[in-house]
Amino acid sequence: MIYFQCDYAEGCHPRILERLTETNLEQTPGYGMDPHCERARNLIRLACGDENADVHFLVGGTQANTTVIASILRPHQGALCADTGHINCHETGAIEATGHKVLPLPNTDGTITGDQVRAYCRAHWDDSSHEHTVQPGLVYISYPTESGTLYTKQQLLDLRAACREWELPLFIDGARLGYGLTSPACDITLPELASLCDVFYIGGTKCGALFGEAVVITGAALKRDFRYAIKQHGGMLAKGRLLGIQFETLFEDGLYFEICKQAVDYALEIRRAFEARGIPMFGTSATNQQFAILTAEQQAAFAGQFASEYWGDAGDGRSIVRFCTSWATTRENVDALLKVINTL
Amino acid sequence: MIYFQCDYAEGCHPRILERLTETNLEQTPGYGMDPHCERARNLIRLACGDENADVHFLVGGTQANTTVIASILRPHQGALCADTGHINCHETGAIEATGHKVLPLPNTDGTITGDQVRAYCRAHWDDSSHEHTVQPGLVYISYPTESGTLYTKQQLLDLRAACREWELPLFIDGARLGYGLTSPACDITLPELASLCDVFYIGGTKCGALFGEAVVITGAALKRDFRYAIKQHGGMLAKGRLLGIQFETLFEDGLYFEICKQAVDYALEIRRAFEARGIPMFGTSATNQQFAILTAEQQAAFAGQFASEYWGDAGDGRSIVRFCTSWATTRENVDALLKVINTL
Amino acid sequence: MIYFQCDYAEGCHPRILERLTETNLEQTPGYGMDPHCERARNLIRLACGDENADVHFLVGGTQANTTVIASILRPHQGALCADTGHINCHETGAIEATGHKVLPLPNTDGTITGDQVRAYCRAHWDDSSHEHTVQPGLVYISYPTESGTLYTKQQLLDLRAACREWELPLFIDGARLGYGLTSPACDITLPELASLCDVFYIGGTKCGALFGEAVVITGAALKRDFRYAIKQHGGMLAKGRLLGIQFETLFEDGLYFEICKQAVDYALEIRRAFEARGIPMFGTSATNQQFAILTAEQQAAFAGQFASEYWGDAGDGRSIVRFCTSWATTRENVDALLKVINTL
Amino acid sequence: MIYFQCDYAEGCHPRILERLTETNLEQTPGYGMDPHCERARNLIRLACGDENADVHFLVGGTQANTTVIASILRPHQGALCADTGHINCHETGAIEATGHKVLPLPNTDGTITGDQVRAYCRAHWDDSSHEHTVQPGLVYISYPTESGTLYTKQQLLDLRAACREWELPLFIDGARLGYGLTSPACDITLPELASLCDVFYIGGTKCGALFGEAVVITGAALKRDFRYAIKQHGGMLAKGRLLGIQFETLFEDGLYFEICKQAVDYALEIRRAFEARGIPMFGTSATNQQFAILTAEQQAAFAGQFASEYWGDAGDGRSIVRFCTSWATTRENVDALLKVINTL
Repeated sequence: MIYFQCDYAEGCHPRILERLTETNLEQTPGYGMDPHCERARNLIRLACGDENADVHFLVGGTQANTTVIASILRPHQGALCADTGHINCHETGAIEATGHKVLPLPNTDGTITGDQVRAYCRAHWDDSSHEHTVQPGLVYISYPTESGTLYTKQQLLDLRAACREWELPLFIDGARLGYGLTSPACDITLPELASLCDVFYIGGTKCGALFGEAVVITGAALKRDFRYAIKQHGGMLAKGRLLGIQFETLFEDGLYFEICKQAVDYALEIRRAFEARGIPMFGTSATNQQFAILTAEQQAAFAGQFASEYWGDAGDGRSIVRFCTSWATTRENVDALLKVINTL
Repeated sequence: MIYFQCDYAEGCHPRILERLTETNLEQTPGYGMDPHCERARNLIRLACGDENADVHFLVGGTQANTTVIASILRPHQGALCADTGHINCHETGAIEATGHKVLPLPNTDGTITGDQVRAYCRAHWDDSSHEHTVQPGLVYISYPTESGTLYTKQQLLDLRAACREWELPLFIDGARLGYGLTSPACDITLPELASLCDVFYIGGTKCGALFGEAVVITGAALKRDFRYAIKQHGGMLAKGRLLGIQFETLFEDGLYFEICKQAVDYALEIRRAFEARGIPMFGTSATNQQFAILTAEQQAAFAGQFASEYWGDAGDGRSIVRFCTSWATTRENVDALLKVINTL
Repeated sequence: MIYFQCDYAEGCHPRILERLTETNLEQTPGYGMDPHCERARNLIRLACGDENADVHFLVGGTQANTTVIASILRPHQGALCADTGHINCHETGAIEATGHKVLPLPNTDGTITGDQVRAYCRAHWDDSSHEHTVQPGLVYISYPTESGTLYTKQQLLDLRAACREWELPLFIDGARLGYGLTSPACDITLPELASLCDVFYIGGTKCGALFGEAVVITGAALKRDFRYAIKQHGGMLAKGRLLGIQFETLFEDGLYFEICKQAVDYALEIRRAFEARGIPMFGTSATNQQFAILTAEQQAAFAGQFASEYWGDAGDGRSIVRFCTSWATTRENVDALLKVINTL
Repeated sequence: MIYFQCDYAEGCHPRILERLTETNLEQTPGYGMDPHCERARNLIRLACGDENADVHFLVGGTQANTTVIASILRPHQGALCADTGHINCHETGAIEATGHKVLPLPNTDGTITGDQVRAYCRAHWDDSSHEHTVQPGLVYISYPTESGTLYTKQQLLDLRAACREWELPLFIDGARLGYGLTSPACDITLPELASLCDVFYIGGTKCGALFGEAVVITGAALKRDFRYAIKQHGGMLAKGRLLGIQFETLFEDGLYFEICKQAVDYALEIRRAFEARGIPMFGTSATNQQFAILTAEQQAAFAGQFASEYWGDAGDGRSIVRFCTSWATTRENVDALLKVINTL
């Protein structure tokens, strides 16, 4: 069975394991205060073009989302996001468990707009009984989105403008950031992204690391006491260096971008193959997740040999099926998949 | 600088890194549903002598404590524990962050007794206004305790009896379980421990793994929906197999116990060396943490060469200083330390 | 200015103030343990036809909703409700503040159906990754709904059946229960309602009391420790008898139903008057809230003389405007309003 | 049976019921936006000598404490207070239910000192791992304390200084404020108290009202969005005017102070009577609660005729018994009690 089901089916890029092995018996302080974390933080600050950014390493995405959001919001505030946002759909109510309502906005291909934020805020503040409703307290978006799509620079500028108008921090979930920044459809750089929001994270788990997300806080007002938040949410790894070593490896010579780019290239090959067979795609993903709309027969062609993920009902008897590449996807496996696609 | 400061200064037992490397490119399902986790669960069930136990792998101790406790308690209930308990002192209020008061009882050398539990519960239920106070909802103890000490089997039987009398689940934090079970002072087996409580965990982070705690639920009433709790608390590792592989390695041939025993032996050598010099020890730890009561001059003898941890003021101008061994402690480093102790 | 804006513009039915005055200097125990509360509980049990029901008096609706829901759900569970449900819209995220996601279902004229509950639960449990999403843990409906409409007995039976199939408690918000049970469109009795759900409340605040809601728990599994929940949520009135005296007065001779019926009769007169002028109504309310769809000119006819409540945009340039009667509405004020309506 | 058990055994001062009756059929806006609340707010601002203070009316003490504290603290912060503090002992973990640890300090006759606050904060911030522990985020004291005692002006100035040094808001629970300010032992005025803290409340429930506490926020940084907090905690009374009318009545001509003073005078008569019989008192209360240390025989002298409250074990076979006066205590009842005391 060949997995195109998700981007976390394998371990990590081999160079990371090598580095973990080399450094294994070093003795270092715990909780992220070691030289590897310090070096990784500096490499990330450099990559982001913000030497004052605070960088923290957390273990996973749900943990990063919850820790960041709970650290920002006051109790009566909620998080605006696309209704398809990961925090709204797939985190077992982790945000609500910290006391905050997720405020979903209808998505367009996974994205929301500055004007949606403006309209929501205006309606809230124009309501003379606004204290009876949850106050919008931040905006959460994903880059790439859960649908694999990308905001344009113009869309991000507009979202940021809307956030500034209503004094809302902008938080970008970058669980798959590497696949976004290396997509041909991407029109921003990492420093631009860093400056367009107040806090974001660079996903490691799905982009070559064993696990780990690097939270980057650029907004000065959000930096205070973040290490308490990490500890309280169970995210302060005793052997914090494990995260430092991984991000050091990924960022010291561009490995992060190199391996993600490869995955995106493969994914777009797969997309083009489906399109060449006249098979409709769900959404316009230009990253490592591709969503084909398949009949039951077409799905059967993959059965037994390839694992993919059922994504939903296309509404016409067909299904939306996700095919995912990753840093670990091989040429050989892509070719095997293309071979089947070409028979559809 | 040689670290005796804590038991998480190094990476992991080399065999674990070998296994992670060997399995690195295997493709497996995520979130703990892979064959490595399944095998590790079975090995742990076997070691615990409870084939019906539920076994879950979490990343760290604070996360394990919070997830277990929040999953058990109703909103008006709290967790009884020693005032020195980790959940009361060193988790940034993680339990309170899930809505529950920690109910501390005065400790004796790190432990609490069945009679303390009985007295607390009786006072609560005898109070005609008991609904104005937090209801005790579970008992949390650590084995070994935060002071390195061990409950005797008799003490555990009595605690269990008290818990049964008042219908309280008993939860054992086993962050350093390996160092407890392999101590010469230990008079219980792992199966006995498993049967004496309703839920406990087998610490990996401090006992040879890169990270990870294996939560073992033996009480039937506590098993339901625990995976939701893990996900909600940000503890469901996408690449769950990383935990499975580690616990597989530690439990397939007794490695866990072997490496912990060595650390305890070293720690007791260090204790005896202090005692031989007439230096008083804080508490009666028979595990891998030893607490010496040192003057400023005595502390100076270690400075620059050895890292230890300041544990508190002994009240007479002297300090309590923790020396910790671990699975990674070497004969050579112990000898170097003993050499200094012998000069005190 | 004459208020038809809401049903809490006045104090309370005069007989309640008389009783508060008569009993004012009686000395009674606090926190709801006094003879007035006891008598009120018995009167309510009698009215509900359930001598084993637990009855608790709380101060307000948001408090009642939060206390009941937080007491029932486990941390990973959420509350299914209509998207128009009060807990979803107008309680400043009070449910989320206790850690639980509200799971909104599209409403039809303020109601949801058993089949919507079934479909949601089936989708949840059929999802192999269901632990990544919030588990439905109870169903919340309002009777009457926030739109003034009523579930039929058949609809309630079906909802209850769906709840039983999926083991979900059914909770009915009865903030305006009196106006529902006395509507000509109502086809159930109070005992039927009590037996159709697991917990509900009898609204006092909007139905003749100064304040207060009587929570009635009929489901045995939900009774345990509810007084702790009340206290924890700040709902345990020191002078609990204030609530007991009010509900005693409302339930000892049918006053509750008598005064609510009058309000509903007036509201339906108002509805018919609008309809007679060809003015469309929003929804099919048969209770004390009526929603007229008015042009700006029509609204102007009421300005300065009558207070009503803007309810939303009708989408065609017109507005939905709520006119509310209450136990305190006078014949004279209704006549004055009808006079204006008849000129539209 | 004559109650000296608590200060909430009766309804309210008769003038309040008269005013509620007079205003009963007035139509006013809800949620505290009516003219009665506005006038009461102004009267309270005047009495506090702070025309910029924000004044909000809440229903009860636990609600007021929870709403204020949850509104101030960030998630990783806790509330420093005396171990005898109401929030630590008698609110069913309401503070913890909002996610915050209560940080108890040993009390002296119900009070804590500025130096205790300083020492706690210094220890916290000096700890290099301070993010592993709960950060002190505010100081909560009660005036009078739960033991009936009063801070001197000097003590309050010192507490405020400590709070300023460590940037902690100071919150004063004034559930029995009237009995404090009218005690002969009191050396501050209401305006002084208002200026010595950042937020406090003027208790109504125990001081002549049916129910209600007036939260006064003097610290500018704490004012923002407090109405959201009230609504979220279920404390926004639909008929908010009920609170406005009560505080109007209590503050328009000094009724609040007049009736509390009387209660304190009676309480001190009772204290002196005990002392005259050589009966030791627990603590130095100079307010409306008096705690006598009685043998079983002495207690028997009151049985059947007087209700008092068991407060705890005096440790020598005797019991601490609370006798409480209130605004409603009559000369006649005091005389009856004195008669028994004089026989002891």
